[in-house]
Amino acid sequence: MSLRIIATGGTFDKHYDEIAGQLDFGASHLPQVISRARITAEVILEELKLLDSLEMQDADRQRILACCQNSTQQAIVIVHGTDTMQLTAQVLGQALQDKTVVLTGAMIPYEIANSDALFNFGFACGVAQVLPPGVYVAMNGQIFAWNKVAKNRSAGVFEPIR
Amino acid sequence: MSLRIIATGGTFDKHYDEIAGQLDFGASHLPQVISRARITAEVILEELKLLDSLEMQDADRQRILACCQNSTQQAIVIVHGTDTMQLTAQVLGQALQDKTVVLTGAMIPYEIANSDALFNFGFACGVAQVLPPGVYVAMNGQIFAWNKVAKNRSAGVFEPIR
Amino acid sequence: MSLRIIATGGTFDKHYDEIAGQLDFGASHLPQVISRARITAEVILEELKLLDSLEMQDADRQRILACCQNSTQQAIVIVHGTDTMQLTAQVLGQALQDKTVVLTGAMIPYEIANSDALFNFGFACGVAQVLPPGVYVAMNGQIFAWNKVAKNRSAGVFEPIR
Amino acid sequence: MSLRIIATGGTFDKHYDEIAGQLDFGASHLPQVISRARITAEVILEELKLLDSLEMQDADRQRILACCQNSTQQAIVIVHGTDTMQLTAQVLGQALQDKTVVLTGAMIPYEIANSDALFNFGFACGVAQVLPPGVYVAMNGQIFAWNKVAKNRSAGVFEPIR
Repeated sequence: MSLRIIATGGTFDKHYDEIAGQLDFGASHLPQVISRARITAEVILEELKLLDSLEMQDADRQRILACCQNSTQQAIVIVHGTDTMQLTAQVLGQALQDKTVVLTGAMIPYEIANSDALFNFGFACGVAQVLPPGVYVAMNGQIFAWNKVAKNRSAGVFEPIR
Repeated sequence: MSLRIIATGGTFDKHYDEIAGQLDFGASHLPQVISRARITAEVILEELKLLDSLEMQDADRQRILACCQNSTQQAIVIVHGTDTMQLTAQVLGQALQDKTVVLTGAMIPYEIANSDALFNFGFACGVAQVLPPGVYVAMNGQIFAWNKVAKNRSAGVFEPIR
Repeated sequence: MSLRIIATGGTFDKHYDEIAGQLDFGASHLPQVISRARITAEVILEELKLLDSLEMQDADRQRILACCQNSTQQAIVIVHGTDTMQLTAQVLGQALQDKTVVLTGAMIPYEIANSDALFNFGFACGVAQVLPPGVYVAMNGQIFAWNKVAKNRSAGVFEPIR
Repeated sequence: MSLRIIATGGTFDKHYDEIAGQLDFGASHLPQVISRARITAEVILEELKLLDSLEMQDADRQRILACCQNSTQQAIVIVHGTDTMQLTAQVLGQALQDKTVVLTGAMIPYEIANSDALFNFGFACGVAQVLPPGVYVAMNGQIFAWNKVAKNRSAGVFEPIR
């Protein structure tokens, strides 16, 4: 089965800039992550502008939606910041019916010790191949429908909402 | 959704013994892996004797089967050596119909740079919650039915067989 | 030979706070670093308040000086932020003659991929046992006298000054 | 100060071969290690055949000696297996008087979690610039003269001998 990965930034892909002394965005880690995963199916990586999800605007979300609509792959994984993941999920969930789109991200950047990034990415790549068409958030080892999830920021976990 | 993880050893869980100067088994890495994954669903970890899968006997496979049969969780992930994963999958596949069992492992131990272990584990934890009851192998970012997979040892990848 | 390690913070010891989503200070990584280094000589670790070196005040530098003066070890390694390392080195260099004090730090935090922290710490632990009494900065694989060094911030390296 | 690094193999440089499923030698990690260390002095890396030090023959030790004799750098670090490090140190120690040669290695390969390799390498790069001419072993955060050291294999540490 063929997979489309869309990189949009977020904590998952932050990079430590040693001159500025802070976390920022450089090149996406996803080419390295995909190679490390030894995926033998076809994988298409599409890199959008890498953004902290708190800085995402409507236009950025529309761009992600367009990528999903134009995708020739049925199974799509979106790597996204956690803070507004549910907002992007809502934009996509209201507009997409025919593909399986799974948003994921990380609480700790891929390049920092004890990161959940690789687990979450594996989880998302798996369920994107199996779930029925629709838009989902995959975090904390769980699958949430796009309109039934919220990030609990003080606890740092995703939770179901009614 | 509640998950049962069964640790059986394999490359995934090998540990470098600095006195002996070789890879061996110590304590399983899975408690650390599960904590790192920040899974908020219930996870039950069951640790069997950690073995190189080339040293697994019939009795070891029957023990794994019994663990699956006795599991009160519907979704089961088995961390297993890659060399005989397909044999264990066959033993389980012929005997189990009512649960979703996903075998996974790693080409590079969890504690070694560039390991696929965390990706594979995430992948397996995801699909175990979504696939219909049955026994599957999840490696290389793909899902294989228990009787339709073989490891290509010279290429180091899992492939479909007819 | 007995070694005193003084932890003062800096990039070396920054920790990613996954709730706040930023690098901050938690517990020092130095107990783990020292254990990893398998040092068989006596090592005394003294943890001061962990600070970004841009936030260090005179009083903080006087406290570091007092630690050095009170040290019963001849060889002292100070883990320090890089941005004001040369200022602390000057305070110490003007006041200390009888011990070998080596300041070091890191351009990338210990817990982030590709960090120079462990190399720098090893380098400093070595030269602190061999250099004659005095105060030194050890960064970029080089040893600098306390009054002959400056950080080139745009290049991110330490350079000799006359 | 200019440094010569001589790679000879040993645990430090072992690499996990995922097809064979065992630790072996591939390309040396030292180019990556040197780059990670951000050394601004001149560093010359000389790669000999990478060997497990238990398999080193007299001819291999003579080749290492010749590299040291031909070195235009005064300060030399040799990355070597720990099991026969003291034997190579004796060959070099009896023949070399005019350069500072420091042998080091690792108890855990560079690419495996919790490795002491980067610490040891930093330590050796430091003391090689400061110690008087002679041949030394640097392990466990200590410096040993070439004829006053032995590896305690059951404890996995280097110890002074008389």
